[in-house]
Amino acid sequence: MTKKENYAIGVDLGGTNIKLGIVSEKGKIVKKISVDTKADLGPESVISQIKKGIHILLNDNAYKIDGIGIGAPGIVALKKGTVENPPNFPGWIKVNLGRIIQKEFKADVHVENDANAAAIGELIFGAGKNIGSFIMITLGTGVGGGIVYHEKIFRGVHGGAGEAGHITIDYKGEKCKCGSFGCIETYAGNGYLVRRVQKELKKHKDSIIWDLISQNPDNLSPKIIDEASAKGDKYAQSIIHDLGIRLGAAFSSMGNLLDINTFIIGGGVAGFGEPMFNTIRETMSQRIITPSRPRIRVIPAKLKNDAGIKGASSLVFYNQ
Amino acid sequence: MTKKENYAIGVDLGGTNIKLGIVSEKGKIVKKISVDTKADLGPESVISQIKKGIHILLNDNAYKIDGIGIGAPGIVALKKGTVENPPNFPGWIKVNLGRIIQKEFKADVHVENDANAAAIGELIFGAGKNIGSFIMITLGTGVGGGIVYHEKIFRGVHGGAGEAGHITIDYKGEKCKCGSFGCIETYAGNGYLVRRVQKELKKHKDSIIWDLISQNPDNLSPKIIDEASAKGDKYAQSIIHDLGIRLGAAFSSMGNLLDINTFIIGGGVAGFGEPMFNTIRETMSQRIITPSRPRIRVIPAKLKNDAGIKGASSLVFYNQ
Repeated sequence: MTKKENYAIGVDLGGTNIKLGIVSEKGKIVKKISVDTKADLGPESVISQIKKGIHILLNDNAYKIDGIGIGAPGIVALKKGTVENPPNFPGWIKVNLGRIIQKEFKADVHVENDANAAAIGELIFGAGKNIGSFIMITLGTGVGGGIVYHEKIFRGVHGGAGEAGHITIDYKGEKCKCGSFGCIETYAGNGYLVRRVQKELKKHKDSIIWDLISQNPDNLSPKIIDEASAKGDKYAQSIIHDLGIRLGAAFSSMGNLLDINTFIIGGGVAGFGEPMFNTIRETMSQRIITPSRPRIRVIPAKLKNDAGIKGASSLVFYNQ
Repeated sequence: MTKKENYAIGVDLGGTNIKLGIVSEKGKIVKKISVDTKADLGPESVISQIKKGIHILLNDNAYKIDGIGIGAPGIVALKKGTVENPPNFPGWIKVNLGRIIQKEFKADVHVENDANAAAIGELIFGAGKNIGSFIMITLGTGVGGGIVYHEKIFRGVHGGAGEAGHITIDYKGEKCKCGSFGCIETYAGNGYLVRRVQKELKKHKDSIIWDLISQNPDNLSPKIIDEASAKGDKYAQSIIHDLGIRLGAAFSSMGNLLDINTFIIGGGVAGFGEPMFNTIRETMSQRIITPSRPRIRVIPAKLKNDAGIKGASSLVFYNQ
């Protein structure tokens, strides 16, 4: 006879889709769905979509649900479960999402910022399992961060800590959406990488990227760059190398400030794999203060697909 | 009749001198002395100088001493009171300074890294008194930092957190002593400022700095630059402006990562005063992420002379 497992619902609130799943306490997704966010129609509409998704999952009575975890963009007040100013959610100022969902389902509800939820996901289910303190970095459209210190999220004074994407590596560098210049996000976001290669590719007529994109720069993606690099394309390799140096410089600043020297990297761009990871490690071992050098660890996240759902569900198990 | 005050001994362990004082719980120094560090003669010698200084202070029986606080360079393990690898202390690997002093004087002894001691000094006696979370920055030969979060020092995994001087603002910039490039310390340390002005001054024949240094660049100091700026010298003002922009960029990275937006600035270079403070504030209000902008506070430290002694003594009152 096996012990009956506990389960939680994880809600990954994205700008386009809301992904929801039932996740076991071991981090296995047993059921998952996706509904439109309908962010353009305003907060009421988004809330009703979240409720709808949870109701669909709960209609299946096969699992004992311990609670609901929600990973949301924007600034989240943990105790109250309010979500403030999520980017790309028009009309959404401050919504008490935690209380609303709690009332609807009479369940234990935990709301966290999505980057912090991803970090807790790695702490509970993933690469951070036996590491008490680490910095979780998510490389995707933007660069997100979550700081785990002695197994707790370091939240800062107003719950906004961990904005790793807005560490400056070149204070006179590229203009960032945030208003600043030279933030690591401006060099490591998907968009920058693709735009850079689109701009430079003409100077690299012999790059195999041309074949991989069928001569059409619109087909470029980080995946293509990775593929070209893996096949030995020098230009693609130089792009990944540059990225590793820049990430290494940003991580060194963070490591020096926090004395937390384990970095767990997730998100699409993490797919560049060992060539990028090695350059980050090498750069950090030259840039971080001497006592920290032997302690540098840069490792890939373990939660890949459905990291958002799993991270959100982990909030329930984490808080128990 | 006035309530009898409690006192602590503060020991400021510097590379050249050890400054010691008896400090009241209100932060007033009632007695102070200085002895040579004799760092060149090795740790034994330094320890014996510290003991000697404390004995001299204790010979005065007028004050009820609650304990001894020591601010030391290097990495300090708080509970054990060990001091590891202090820069400029030849032969000093790891010394259990706390236990040695405790044994000698049978007193309550607290050892802290000097930058953290300065931060606690401001928390207990100074500008951080009613501010639970702030970043203390000391601008002198180097740039030091201490992070106070919810009235406690944020120490990081190995006690080395707060290395604010080694936040990079330009990853391809000036070579730093730490091995990295473009650390804020390379732009804001005393040495850099003086060297920069010495190098550029020939191009500024009309600068009143020439008069203030009696035409001899060897006489340059941050104080002279400040004096020239206060008298309206455009070139001196531009130096302070540049410094403010660079510090503002570094502080914005720190604020974004930590969501701690109060900066308390001490040390000699803080003497540049409002022109520098205003440029830092202005830069941060353009660079830090939007939700943090209304929360920026950049204020001068209150402990000026003898900040080291007072900070060290505050460890005793802080821990009570």
